[in-house]
Amino acid sequence: MATKIITISRQFGSGGRTIGKRVAEELGFDYYDSEIIDHVAGETGFSRDYVAANSEYAPGKSVFSYSFEAASAPGVMNGMTTADYLYSVQRKVILDIANKNKPCVIVGRCADHILREFDGVLNVFVYADIEWRAKRVVEVYGESDVKPLKRVSDKDKKRAANYKHFTDCEWGRADNYDLCLNSGFIGIDKCVDIIKEVSALK
Amino acid sequence: MATKIITISRQFGSGGRTIGKRVAEELGFDYYDSEIIDHVAGETGFSRDYVAANSEYAPGKSVFSYSFEAASAPGVMNGMTTADYLYSVQRKVILDIANKNKPCVIVGRCADHILREFDGVLNVFVYADIEWRAKRVVEVYGESDVKPLKRVSDKDKKRAANYKHFTDCEWGRADNYDLCLNSGFIGIDKCVDIIKEVSALK
Repeated sequence: MATKIITISRQFGSGGRTIGKRVAEELGFDYYDSEIIDHVAGETGFSRDYVAANSEYAPGKSVFSYSFEAASAPGVMNGMTTADYLYSVQRKVILDIANKNKPCVIVGRCADHILREFDGVLNVFVYADIEWRAKRVVEVYGESDVKPLKRVSDKDKKRAANYKHFTDCEWGRADNYDLCLNSGFIGIDKCVDIIKEVSALK
Repeated sequence: MATKIITISRQFGSGGRTIGKRVAEELGFDYYDSEIIDHVAGETGFSRDYVAANSEYAPGKSVFSYSFEAASAPGVMNGMTTADYLYSVQRKVILDIANKNKPCVIVGRCADHILREFDGVLNVFVYADIEWRAKRVVEVYGESDVKPLKRVSDKDKKRAANYKHFTDCEWGRADNYDLCLNSGFIGIDKCVDIIKEVSALK
């Protein structure tokens, strides 16, 4: 069967988002990335910035976050941490997107794992050498107070912890995905081409 | 620069060897797999069967192997285990192949790690779901006393231990390679095509 959903997991700075967006445009698929943040913000009452900052980088919060954050969404968290609550809403949003049955690309947010029982899903992982990514992060996002290598390495660690917590799998293991592309080696254009070719196979 | 060497690391039963052989034939590259076993056997004095059985599945040997096996290659093992000795010879054989400066495909044997300082190397990992590989192993190698799933799983564990022991890296992590292909999902023919396309990029 043809690929209906392409999930793109990516190391920070690898260009995975750019690749996902271009694949969606070129195939005429819907594209979900920050749109998921909007949905989760809408459903939870948390601000968009709060969801953006926490939805892929949990769990790193102190136990004190329970009572404070529960107050933001009273009666619905049922003793869950904010991280678990955001994940549960994000999971529902991703399942709703998949159940629309419209071809789409979904970037990040453990979508590969959440949709593992669905047919017609192509799971892609995009990564690159840390030096290549650190350079690209400065080009794309500009300078910050934190050194580029540390910015990249901190985000990797948080995404890995997030993935492990919610999927019990190791982030970045090839066998979680159908196709893994080193964008620094292969180049962003060719990554787009290969994903399109493989998506046409099923 | 153009790709001069393609290393193919592979899960047992994934078709990585078949893919490597076809890539070499279609690109007109030399192909090294069992040829490495012949070289190592020639250099060490161990039998071909012994090298084949041990060169990718070490270290799993008892301490008693030191004295017995040292006797097969007197004076050269210098207190190394057989596993370490075979690896050191295999490493030298792979470096000699790379230094010939003739385009080639090398299957397995930590070649990705051994050649990490060389330019023009494309490192590929081929893998697939364990059920797909178990079925393929019976089709390609026939039945054995051991159940197919266990045959596959045992070899995976041994290759992972071998890789970890000699490279201190985790076998099967995407970022050890430039390109990782799920042959069960993508199909052997398309894996060959993608590797050829990527090898033409550098």
